[in-house]
Amino acid sequence: MLAKKYQEMLSAKSVIRSLSEYAAERGRQIGYENVFDYSLGNPSVDVPQSYTDTLISMLRTENSMALHGYSPTLTIPSVREAVAENLNRRFGMKYQKEHIFMVSGAAGAIAHAVRLVSQPGDEIITFAPFFPEYHPYVDLSGARLTVVPAHTQDFQIHFEALDAAMNDHVAAVLINTPNNPSGVVYSEETLKRLSAYLHEKQEEYGHEIYLISDEPYREIVFDHKIAPYPANYYENTITCYSWSKSLSVPGDRIGYVAVHPGCPDAELMIQMCGQISRGIGHNCPTAMVQLAVAGNLDVTADLSVYETNRNILYRELQALGFTVVCPAGTFYIFPKALEEDAVVFCEKAKNYDLILVPGDSFGCPGYFRMAYCIDTEKVERSIPALRRFVEKEYGH
Amino acid sequence: MLAKKYQEMLSAKSVIRSLSEYAAERGRQIGYENVFDYSLGNPSVDVPQSYTDTLISMLRTENSMALHGYSPTLTIPSVREAVAENLNRRFGMKYQKEHIFMVSGAAGAIAHAVRLVSQPGDEIITFAPFFPEYHPYVDLSGARLTVVPAHTQDFQIHFEALDAAMNDHVAAVLINTPNNPSGVVYSEETLKRLSAYLHEKQEEYGHEIYLISDEPYREIVFDHKIAPYPANYYENTITCYSWSKSLSVPGDRIGYVAVHPGCPDAELMIQMCGQISRGIGHNCPTAMVQLAVAGNLDVTADLSVYETNRNILYRELQALGFTVVCPAGTFYIFPKALEEDAVVFCEKAKNYDLILVPGDSFGCPGYFRMAYCIDTEKVERSIPALRRFVEKEYGH
Repeated sequence: MLAKKYQEMLSAKSVIRSLSEYAAERGRQIGYENVFDYSLGNPSVDVPQSYTDTLISMLRTENSMALHGYSPTLTIPSVREAVAENLNRRFGMKYQKEHIFMVSGAAGAIAHAVRLVSQPGDEIITFAPFFPEYHPYVDLSGARLTVVPAHTQDFQIHFEALDAAMNDHVAAVLINTPNNPSGVVYSEETLKRLSAYLHEKQEEYGHEIYLISDEPYREIVFDHKIAPYPANYYENTITCYSWSKSLSVPGDRIGYVAVHPGCPDAELMIQMCGQISRGIGHNCPTAMVQLAVAGNLDVTADLSVYETNRNILYRELQALGFTVVCPAGTFYIFPKALEEDAVVFCEKAKNYDLILVPGDSFGCPGYFRMAYCIDTEKVERSIPALRRFVEKEYGH
Repeated sequence: MLAKKYQEMLSAKSVIRSLSEYAAERGRQIGYENVFDYSLGNPSVDVPQSYTDTLISMLRTENSMALHGYSPTLTIPSVREAVAENLNRRFGMKYQKEHIFMVSGAAGAIAHAVRLVSQPGDEIITFAPFFPEYHPYVDLSGARLTVVPAHTQDFQIHFEALDAAMNDHVAAVLINTPNNPSGVVYSEETLKRLSAYLHEKQEEYGHEIYLISDEPYREIVFDHKIAPYPANYYENTITCYSWSKSLSVPGDRIGYVAVHPGCPDAELMIQMCGQISRGIGHNCPTAMVQLAVAGNLDVTADLSVYETNRNILYRELQALGFTVVCPAGTFYIFPKALEEDAVVFCEKAKNYDLILVPGDSFGCPGYFRMAYCIDTEKVERSIPALRRFVEKEYGH
């Protein structure tokens, strides 16, 4: 018999994907350039030339058996070492290569982190609004995802709601800063308060509570700021990174798990990651991709377009009377809908060829997400459509 | 608390890996060229130039966002189509792209196949001698691996032992032809008999019993022969392929799952693979690697060295009085040890700098594996050491 759980997943079709398919279909009718498709979080800027050059140079000059050979179980030592050094320099950490494990993107990182720290039936807490793929990542590991309601004033953490959800079965708290879909960056104050709270609960329950920190948007922060690095505030942190957004290489499937050196058994945890990989049949990301990112650790794609787009959209949404928290990073913005049901709101927007995603998908009904990883020219052309939509439907 | 099962896996250290580490250590003492290291199944021939050229050409000319962009959930359609057409041409199958799903090597393929067809607690049957990684691939999916004893006369299937092991909880039978470690290719007769047997049992139990066919060595077959294609003999076949050996690219992590079009719900099964990937945090192999293999489907590395090495070793082992089945493919040979305990036998061999792996690891005590994916020159230099070993220890 075919496995039931994967069949059931198929029937729960992703709202984001459906909207993206609608946008493509509509594009075939009126030209995709006329569809203001804010549905998908796909990077929209070129891969940096130095990354391409690194790959070409390796392919031309390296011994082919070495370049395409098996990675060691714990992934390539020189790559792990380079990642550790880079994090140490940037964030004042003390990682060694023994604390780094290369994986295939943030999805792979979270899949490893959750399996690492949980027994079947354990709970993983996350905060709305949250990336909907956390459900399959956590649920199919045997653990359960518990979602704490959003603190909609600023999309920092709702600590009262966290306290209400906390219990002895919680193995880890999963955060995402800069955040998809809100664009908000957790402040130092938030991270300090979270750390103090988790320390208190660790003591109360007599076991570790890990912080799994999902950071694919770490490099996309605006106004010349740097996002506070969560592991700086809490020792039991497992940092999950992906280069998908910073280098515009989501198809290359590359990221890492970094375990805070202050974690009890930090090195053991990385060794366990190697065993988790065996169990899920993964066995290391592509070797040449590991080597290519290691040669480009201080490089990013030209991410400035995202800030330009943020500026336009935030200004215009405010002008149109939306309640909206200003994104400090990512390529998302998460305004409040102009009527209670954001699903109805987004459905109406389709009549203006505006493709918006209801917040319900992110555990935050009444809001909607715009993914502004699109050309600025298109963002600008979308503004009149947005105005018409608001005026006609809501009389602003 | 850290997950116990992955900690336990760490304490069960792989014999093959330990032997490989011993060989490396010994190499530091006497020069690795003097260690006759037959431990690891790593390809030892160059990657074909056309594969490298394809990658370089794509990196130079393709749009970077397209080349490094997300794969669709079900992997790249043009790649799936190319794989289907290639299999149809070579094996007279009727695959369409809807029956193909790209994965990261045979490990990924088997991890998907097992999750696809089993509920927790179901049994997967395999045949000794077998690749020891089948244990983590199967056990950590929630299913259980049952090993049927070897038919040591020819390392085809031991059908009486299969019948003794068969029961209503068996979801699939997992075969590996050409076989690691025996080098044997399952004959047409074996595959026909297996098909008839599984049909009979399907009818008796009133449910499907799938055949999961692990074929990373399909292209390494000697004497100008072609290995019979298992899916030609049984409709409920899930073929698991990897290019690791045929293109010498194990570090690129690329393979596929092909579901026989005659399987009930064949297309559904491939869609389920996309959901399994979400659950294990995998989400497609590296996009440019998918594209690169699709451009090299009729290409292999120069695999002739493996046949040359087979010829030398088979001849010399026979001359030395070993009981040994002639490998028809792969880069392994699996002779009977010259004393009952192959672990002791292999331990003694180390004194002659011969690194051999006891068959116990493959579920077949009393035998040992030699992985002859090494330079022919070294194989030739190992023969005097082998002779000395046999003469001194066993007086032949």
